[in-house]
Amino acid sequence: MASESDFLDWIRSQQALSPLVSLAAGDDLAVLKWPVGELLLVGADQVLDGVHFDASIHTPRQIGRKAMNRNLSDCAAMACLPAAAIATVALPRGMGMEFARELYLGLREAGDAFNCPIVGGDTASWDGKLALSVAILARADGIHPITRGGAKVNDSIYVTGALGGSILGRHMNFTPRIKEARELAKSSPISAMIDISDGLARDLARICQMSNVGAVIDAVAIPIHADAITLSKKSGRSWLEHALHDGEDHELLFTCPTRPPVGTLIGHITADRSLLLHENGKTTPLSPGGWDYAL
Amino acid sequence: MASESDFLDWIRSQQALSPLVSLAAGDDLAVLKWPVGELLLVGADQVLDGVHFDASIHTPRQIGRKAMNRNLSDCAAMACLPAAAIATVALPRGMGMEFARELYLGLREAGDAFNCPIVGGDTASWDGKLALSVAILARADGIHPITRGGAKVNDSIYVTGALGGSILGRHMNFTPRIKEARELAKSSPISAMIDISDGLARDLARICQMSNVGAVIDAVAIPIHADAITLSKKSGRSWLEHALHDGEDHELLFTCPTRPPVGTLIGHITADRSLLLHENGKTTPLSPGGWDYAL
Repeated sequence: MASESDFLDWIRSQQALSPLVSLAAGDDLAVLKWPVGELLLVGADQVLDGVHFDASIHTPRQIGRKAMNRNLSDCAAMACLPAAAIATVALPRGMGMEFARELYLGLREAGDAFNCPIVGGDTASWDGKLALSVAILARADGIHPITRGGAKVNDSIYVTGALGGSILGRHMNFTPRIKEARELAKSSPISAMIDISDGLARDLARICQMSNVGAVIDAVAIPIHADAITLSKKSGRSWLEHALHDGEDHELLFTCPTRPPVGTLIGHITADRSLLLHENGKTTPLSPGGWDYAL
Repeated sequence: MASESDFLDWIRSQQALSPLVSLAAGDDLAVLKWPVGELLLVGADQVLDGVHFDASIHTPRQIGRKAMNRNLSDCAAMACLPAAAIATVALPRGMGMEFARELYLGLREAGDAFNCPIVGGDTASWDGKLALSVAILARADGIHPITRGGAKVNDSIYVTGALGGSILGRHMNFTPRIKEARELAKSSPISAMIDISDGLARDLARICQMSNVGAVIDAVAIPIHADAITLSKKSGRSWLEHALHDGEDHELLFTCPTRPPVGTLIGHITADRSLLLHENGKTTPLSPGGWDYAL
């Protein structure tokens, strides 16, 4: 039977070279030569069976891709460039070498699309469900990181793409908006940005919280994805509700005082710290109904 | 009921300041100012319920500490200084805020002992068992990282501390040998080093594999921990077997051509790439019987 050490030998044979990486996976830690004076951004996100994917439906390649793409989407949210990733995998016992390889290839495929090599990590088998955790390192590369905390009163609010219904499939197969984020940051004074992972309403609330501001969004301006329309037929909830509250769109939500080259205008930032929805001539409080875990 | 966002608000209130960290947890990524010209070391290790701890026996504080200490021990293995950590936690649904806090405090307590702040991460609840993954960033700080690959023929082999029987409790409560590793690397030409996580025999085999050498170790020289003796009474296996093959000692195993200030001499490096045990006047092959996961 194949073992963890066979798998690690195989991973070592797969390592891509990078000018940044002096010593990749295979030792206790990887060694990187960090560019002089370059800001270093770090974070981590996990994907869990039954929460972020369904191991009985999704392929290990898809699961690996999603684990990496969630982290790449965090890089997009700050307009930085991915540099390297580290992954840990908790593998249900007996899944086998081929499954582990496919997970790794999914992670790598997604990383390769943005020149982000996997430089280390850990694999273990357990009597538990599949869990992948990815930590990502990124660099500013000439663009000061865009936080959630810089939105100013009267800034306009924009979103890339169309929202809602990602659960029908897009949540496994989205493209991190790194190129768009870099283009936006280079061309426009983007004041705050986040990637929509927990729903437009909840993620906009996060920008407002960190920026000490409020927001009004315009219902008719929100770009509705075709999946939100399809899903509303089954769910009995409106297109708009799906677009406002569904998670895992992984589009960019950002604020800017000027007109940016990319994005749909959906509202503006206000001083009074409340989150409001303007719809049919009425303005009502919008409560963040998106994804939040009870502990 | 407390939610993930309440927990994140609490974590934000706990953040320690550090000259390295410009922006800590609370945004999509943390932002660090990496010291100019400093090598950056990165890695990740996880702890899983039923493999590395038992959630029905160990406290969340202990589990958090172990998750961090495993990573700090990887820093020791390369003689580098921990700089920052990122943690993801997959929490069994309904464990509650107090449990999540205790996990975090365990992580932080262990990190604080080596000035290693937690700068970000991710928490999610699931219908699965408890899993923690920690990624660690470290810096060389004047000592070139010591790899597994530098052992030379005729180098002596040393180990810190005493080995075996860690499962009786030490595996939850070890001290990462960072100070010892730095002292060794400053004072002596350490050629290769690893922390013993999967057993002396298996981890020595890793040094030999990466260095393209072999080794002979002397049975009577191996420092046996009192726990190995206690355990052998129950297990029916010898003290020596426990010291050679038990995992999670997290002591340093290293090679050096000169006499180092710390460590017990247990053998020497040979040219022929085999791993041998010298015992009672006989030399026999030593096969790595330590921890390896079937996939």
